[in-house]
Amino acid sequence: MRKEHDSLGIQSVPQSAYYGIHTVRARGNFPAVSSVNDRELIKNFLRVKLACARANQKAGRWDDERVPLAIVKACQDLLAHFEEYEDEFTIPAIQGGAGTSTNMNVNEVVANRAIELLGGQKGDYQLVNPNDDVNKSQSTNDTYPTAGHLTMIQLTDRLSLTLKKVIATLKQLAEKYQTTLKMGRTQLEDAIPTTFGRSFHAYASLLERDLKRLKAARDQLLTVPLGGTAIGTSLTATHEYLKNIIAELQNATLLPVKGCEDLIDGVQNTDEYVQLSGAYKSLAVDLSKMCNDLRLLGSGPQNGLGELNLPQRQAGSSIMPGKVNPVIPEFVTQTAYQVIGHDATITMAAEAGQLELNAFEPVMFFDLFDDARLLNGALQTLNENCLMGITVNVERCRQMVESSAEAATALSPLLGYETVSHLVKKALKEQRPIRELVGDRLTTAELNQALAPTAFFVK
Amino acid sequence: MRKEHDSLGIQSVPQSAYYGIHTVRARGNFPAVSSVNDRELIKNFLRVKLACARANQKAGRWDDERVPLAIVKACQDLLAHFEEYEDEFTIPAIQGGAGTSTNMNVNEVVANRAIELLGGQKGDYQLVNPNDDVNKSQSTNDTYPTAGHLTMIQLTDRLSLTLKKVIATLKQLAEKYQTTLKMGRTQLEDAIPTTFGRSFHAYASLLERDLKRLKAARDQLLTVPLGGTAIGTSLTATHEYLKNIIAELQNATLLPVKGCEDLIDGVQNTDEYVQLSGAYKSLAVDLSKMCNDLRLLGSGPQNGLGELNLPQRQAGSSIMPGKVNPVIPEFVTQTAYQVIGHDATITMAAEAGQLELNAFEPVMFFDLFDDARLLNGALQTLNENCLMGITVNVERCRQMVESSAEAATALSPLLGYETVSHLVKKALKEQRPIRELVGDRLTTAELNQALAPTAFFVK
Amino acid sequence: MRKEHDSLGIQSVPQSAYYGIHTVRARGNFPAVSSVNDRELIKNFLRVKLACARANQKAGRWDDERVPLAIVKACQDLLAHFEEYEDEFTIPAIQGGAGTSTNMNVNEVVANRAIELLGGQKGDYQLVNPNDDVNKSQSTNDTYPTAGHLTMIQLTDRLSLTLKKVIATLKQLAEKYQTTLKMGRTQLEDAIPTTFGRSFHAYASLLERDLKRLKAARDQLLTVPLGGTAIGTSLTATHEYLKNIIAELQNATLLPVKGCEDLIDGVQNTDEYVQLSGAYKSLAVDLSKMCNDLRLLGSGPQNGLGELNLPQRQAGSSIMPGKVNPVIPEFVTQTAYQVIGHDATITMAAEAGQLELNAFEPVMFFDLFDDARLLNGALQTLNENCLMGITVNVERCRQMVESSAEAATALSPLLGYETVSHLVKKALKEQRPIRELVGDRLTTAELNQALAPTAFFVK
Amino acid sequence: MRKEHDSLGIQSVPQSAYYGIHTVRARGNFPAVSSVNDRELIKNFLRVKLACARANQKAGRWDDERVPLAIVKACQDLLAHFEEYEDEFTIPAIQGGAGTSTNMNVNEVVANRAIELLGGQKGDYQLVNPNDDVNKSQSTNDTYPTAGHLTMIQLTDRLSLTLKKVIATLKQLAEKYQTTLKMGRTQLEDAIPTTFGRSFHAYASLLERDLKRLKAARDQLLTVPLGGTAIGTSLTATHEYLKNIIAELQNATLLPVKGCEDLIDGVQNTDEYVQLSGAYKSLAVDLSKMCNDLRLLGSGPQNGLGELNLPQRQAGSSIMPGKVNPVIPEFVTQTAYQVIGHDATITMAAEAGQLELNAFEPVMFFDLFDDARLLNGALQTLNENCLMGITVNVERCRQMVESSAEAATALSPLLGYETVSHLVKKALKEQRPIRELVGDRLTTAELNQALAPTAFFVK
Repeated sequence: MRKEHDSLGIQSVPQSAYYGIHTVRARGNFPAVSSVNDRELIKNFLRVKLACARANQKAGRWDDERVPLAIVKACQDLLAHFEEYEDEFTIPAIQGGAGTSTNMNVNEVVANRAIELLGGQKGDYQLVNPNDDVNKSQSTNDTYPTAGHLTMIQLTDRLSLTLKKVIATLKQLAEKYQTTLKMGRTQLEDAIPTTFGRSFHAYASLLERDLKRLKAARDQLLTVPLGGTAIGTSLTATHEYLKNIIAELQNATLLPVKGCEDLIDGVQNTDEYVQLSGAYKSLAVDLSKMCNDLRLLGSGPQNGLGELNLPQRQAGSSIMPGKVNPVIPEFVTQTAYQVIGHDATITMAAEAGQLELNAFEPVMFFDLFDDARLLNGALQTLNENCLMGITVNVERCRQMVESSAEAATALSPLLGYETVSHLVKKALKEQRPIRELVGDRLTTAELNQALAPTAFFVK
Repeated sequence: MRKEHDSLGIQSVPQSAYYGIHTVRARGNFPAVSSVNDRELIKNFLRVKLACARANQKAGRWDDERVPLAIVKACQDLLAHFEEYEDEFTIPAIQGGAGTSTNMNVNEVVANRAIELLGGQKGDYQLVNPNDDVNKSQSTNDTYPTAGHLTMIQLTDRLSLTLKKVIATLKQLAEKYQTTLKMGRTQLEDAIPTTFGRSFHAYASLLERDLKRLKAARDQLLTVPLGGTAIGTSLTATHEYLKNIIAELQNATLLPVKGCEDLIDGVQNTDEYVQLSGAYKSLAVDLSKMCNDLRLLGSGPQNGLGELNLPQRQAGSSIMPGKVNPVIPEFVTQTAYQVIGHDATITMAAEAGQLELNAFEPVMFFDLFDDARLLNGALQTLNENCLMGITVNVERCRQMVESSAEAATALSPLLGYETVSHLVKKALKEQRPIRELVGDRLTTAELNQALAPTAFFVK
Repeated sequence: MRKEHDSLGIQSVPQSAYYGIHTVRARGNFPAVSSVNDRELIKNFLRVKLACARANQKAGRWDDERVPLAIVKACQDLLAHFEEYEDEFTIPAIQGGAGTSTNMNVNEVVANRAIELLGGQKGDYQLVNPNDDVNKSQSTNDTYPTAGHLTMIQLTDRLSLTLKKVIATLKQLAEKYQTTLKMGRTQLEDAIPTTFGRSFHAYASLLERDLKRLKAARDQLLTVPLGGTAIGTSLTATHEYLKNIIAELQNATLLPVKGCEDLIDGVQNTDEYVQLSGAYKSLAVDLSKMCNDLRLLGSGPQNGLGELNLPQRQAGSSIMPGKVNPVIPEFVTQTAYQVIGHDATITMAAEAGQLELNAFEPVMFFDLFDDARLLNGALQTLNENCLMGITVNVERCRQMVESSAEAATALSPLLGYETVSHLVKKALKEQRPIRELVGDRLTTAELNQALAPTAFFVK
Repeated sequence: MRKEHDSLGIQSVPQSAYYGIHTVRARGNFPAVSSVNDRELIKNFLRVKLACARANQKAGRWDDERVPLAIVKACQDLLAHFEEYEDEFTIPAIQGGAGTSTNMNVNEVVANRAIELLGGQKGDYQLVNPNDDVNKSQSTNDTYPTAGHLTMIQLTDRLSLTLKKVIATLKQLAEKYQTTLKMGRTQLEDAIPTTFGRSFHAYASLLERDLKRLKAARDQLLTVPLGGTAIGTSLTATHEYLKNIIAELQNATLLPVKGCEDLIDGVQNTDEYVQLSGAYKSLAVDLSKMCNDLRLLGSGPQNGLGELNLPQRQAGSSIMPGKVNPVIPEFVTQTAYQVIGHDATITMAAEAGQLELNAFEPVMFFDLFDDARLLNGALQTLNENCLMGITVNVERCRQMVESSAEAATALSPLLGYETVSHLVKKALKEQRPIRELVGDRLTTAELNQALAPTAFFVK
């Protein structure tokens, strides 16, 4: 064990550890009731540290040029061999301190790796100091949200890609079943006929709006508060540094990030997270609605609607032989509920921000990263294990449409609402086809035209 | 107009108004975006004022005995002829100030009515003062939550009565359809047969637990913080007053109210409101689940499950003749969602309490009172316009059960899970009855016993 | 009373009523636990009816040209003298049937007014039929959401205007206090100095993003499903009608509305409502955060932060003389919580949509309209009764900043984090100014430069 | 690899695996976006399997007595050496299929361990069959919720124990600071004096109600649906089995569990989970409120309220030297928000139950187990790392109280509300003590008595 000290006193740190005293204290303070900090967040933090070191170097902030070079090299090294160093970053994601512990964990690991690269012993912070060197011109206030934004952008991009695949599958289904008539239902009651092509297309149209909402929320996150340092004042940063830092972050991330015009606002407010959560929630709501429809349409096999055949994925019951359940849509709906619950958490956390900072960003990050993964996983299995294998019970759908009394709505413009009401009631009561009951009110040609399949989907 | 003054200055008040300067200011501050203060809340406030006046009188807090008598008389009078004075209480329910405006509104109206009774002119607060006399030994901190508790108790009692009627109807349905077989479904897929009697009974069992939760939440509210005055310190109240106030409140309300043991806690915390909201929410969830089931089971009339006939209440469509929709269950579900949303509001408001008081009680009260009314209305129409008229499509249910492949689960103990799996798959594929496929694996007697209707509901 | 009939039977309707049998039935079904249908919604419904009548007329859908003219005239008349007819529209906003009752209520009132204009007797639907004539080429499925969209757009526009005023006031405050130093605080702990100008500007920056979110949500609603008729199939509408209907709606509303490309989607999905609710919620969260800050900064007057003076609006207590409370921010926060709760309701309602329609639009509309009014009222009183009268306790802020130990952060680049840590701890412990403790580590010039007021806000 | 088959076909399973084909399929279906099934849930499942085997054995359900003995032994063995077998249970907690995959995973592992004990080869299900033997007289419908109940009871008991410790610490603080005067504040504005003893006691009183709510929710869970088998019909179970099963479960768990009177209800409804979630949420709300107070009261160190000293746990900033933040309360509040978010998830999942089963129990279990752990961790660190080390700034509190103008409320009964209002305003404006301004309105003795410290807390 080596001894390290901070303003609160002295603490033992394992000799081999790259992390330091702050990390040790934080792990004692925050029970591991959440998983540890997101791996992508840590990697993005390393990219931020690298960009800052370079911007500081260009701004001439070090007498000894070896320090920034070592920091840059350390960041590159940690990124390139991340799995080797992963265990150095073990602070629980849900933490007090508004992210300071995560930032200091990174500062300590980078410092000690840089010290090693300069030939020093871990803990010899004279060579490279976690605060003065690695954190130079920075605060948790600006680096933590910046690393968070980057992570949200990446995870949202991944999610959007998977969502696009789902939309493509839905469009294929729409095309395949373009003219396959089925009963439409409103309020679970028989309405007029429509086609499965239209149904699948409507899902695609819906999810395309979700894609746009994700993009709008994601694009907004390209604006990062880096350079704001403490509470957005840029205190301790220099003009030179501020001139370069965004360009360096662009280099380090290959993302077209921008700086905040109002850094005080950028550091303090978390409304973009609420917006992102809203976009995730909207997608969750829409997926769950669609999956509920799939379960309804696939219900049966004997005593349900039975219009769709969902791929059979696993035995459905430990006791009921031969039962098969819609496990994939059920999985999707549960991830959706989880995402919706997270939105409540994020909303409360955002509202609880006070004055120059929101202390509750860690739980927002935790839930937002989780959302992206939950939805991505849900979309993947939905696409591959459900949608791609769906088939329509064409014959059953046809029978339903043909015997449907409510299709008589098409006769309303000819016979009037009230007359058709009576025909429908009679048809239902006597279980006779509408055509038969119309009698000589209409010619066969008129009837055929009004009730032709195309009447229900070509306009 | 008469002139009134307070510590902020002078304000005009309509000559005829019983309310005074505080009410005028409050109405200027709080836009009427919510409805005005609940009528029951105001009435309970009057009961509180009456009880306090009596307790103060017994404690000898007035030199001139006519003052408390006038206050008591004023309260009785306002209660007896409430509709005449109703328009004096027009402060919006959602208000800043933690209820002070509502309390002062009541204080002012009571004072001016008492002044009148003493032969004075409205506004002559030398006779009866809203603060020193009507509010004597009181604070908004203790009277507002007390009046709130009383209102919640009354509204919950009314709701519970209606809920009991619904439970009774469900039990009648359970008895009527005790042996009516129907398909059970898990995850919307055909499971094994059950009876409608059991289904209705399960709803009754569920709602009986809700009744208990309502009672537990309601009973807790019998403990009121009256006597706490400012922040629960009882400052300005005397021993004598405190000894009598709860008994006087019991007299005034005919409810077995109790005083708080820890008045600081009683004034400051709003967890009982969260619990009550939780009980309302639980009922809402359960009602919506049941109503969703009713809609599913009644779906059709041709291309749905069609097991239940819900009473037809109104034409279902402006365009589709003869369509009828399950409008009552839909109404119930929407009130349920509203109640669930209110729970989020109440949760946030409770969490936002600070130090010695929660400033956000007004919105909690508003939503809780609304909840009770929403649920009561929903239960009433559900009972009268839906449940009482429900009938079962007995024949259709029987057919479903008889042709059900999954009923073969009953053969599992005899033939083993795997063998029965194959029989079920075969039955579904070839659309043949299970009985036929069992062949000589079982005797007819064994088959008859295993698949007898009673096998699915008598144990 | 006159007798009217529908497919369910006969019902009495008051002789003088413009509404008809559907309205009577609906009022019996849906308890008045919510307020009646929004007045703006009804007006927009009338505009929709007017546009449809004209599009139908152009499409040559009537033999007798007087019918559409009478419908158009009736709509104009009802709009022009709305207060005279208001009581004809008394169906509770929260209703089963997915809006059918509201649509039929409008159809009936328009029909009877048109009948009158044609010289007939109310109830003589041979002249003008609520379904066949007023509802021609329409369904509740397309008209109800269309009228809803229009209402949301108008209410959001009004809200945005008020929000702009608040932003303008904040910018004026930002300018006024541009160089007024104050302590920044993170996690409620003293951080480094900032200025009130920056604080107010940050609020303005935040709310400007809310304005954008409102606009994005509002613009999306310009796309309306009118023309979709039942479930988006356009059944009963003709090509000619569909070609004209959007242009007619533009004329009737003076809004640049567009038609849906995918009408099935447009009728079925409610994600735009979720997005609008999200925009309202985001504004609510941000307003509440700001108002919480105002309450904190204005806390006191003696034993709080006391940096801001909020305008005194009313006496704060019925028992504590001279107390004044921040009632306006408290009001705003409560409306914010209400809006946040509504978002939960709307989310659940959207998720519960099934197949070709969402039956729960009525509660979504109810809450969304309420949101816009709650927020508008909150912003108005916030602007006029709070923000416009705010002043800063400049002297108190100056003292705080000058004695602040944490301002020493500015010395970090010169002395290193660790050294400054010790100075700060010493300063706090011994209650001595930092300047004094720096000793000869820095020259006076260096110290003056590092700790100059401008160091904390000019970069 | 060995081959296993089910009704859907054949699948490879690793030779050494105790799990079987169902587990393999499930892992392919459900992405690992949640952590794997809770370890305590699995252990309780093993206890359920053990109890069922014994009850079946007593009921004479096996010809070969070795089978139940092997199952019992296998369960005991898996429980005793759980860490060795842990990796056999790797199905993600959030899963479709209503828990069937978890049940089948357990059935498979128990079967294969029992087969081993009987000298067979893994996969030789002729010896012990996962469905026919391990799952005998059971369904996922009854075993999954039963194992869930047991887990919730245990986790809630653990949580309650930790909560009791927190209450004990608060009571110690209440005693220690029983007579330490401090300013009370309502709506963040100075109210009248109180004591820190009373403040801490109020927190204890609040949390004691949470303890009761936890107990009520926990006790309700003692009623388990075991014996219900499929949808609560008890199909495949025998009278003998049903007579014994609850007693066997009591033996296996040492908990006073009871059977459901209405098994259909017990299998179908999830309202007890909503109630438990409500109890967790209530605790979360109350903890967060208290922690927000602690942060407020400890704010500073120079420019905040500064009444409390929270233990310093870690350096508070990477940039601001010497800063220390209230990281423990911040941690607690974040866990609280997470729990509150989960309540939204659980509410939606409960409402989405359909007919004879709720398919969304897995996500409810996941969140409820998480809640118990989040709150337990939060309470532990709160107790040990914050509450136990809290001290009061007695001197600062005393000064605040002495200079407080609002303490003059105590003079109201003597001088009247209005007069005291003027005194308070004058005192604030001129910054003079109230005592001085009272003049000869009161004698010194009267003044001393009215403003004595005890006046504010002894009654």
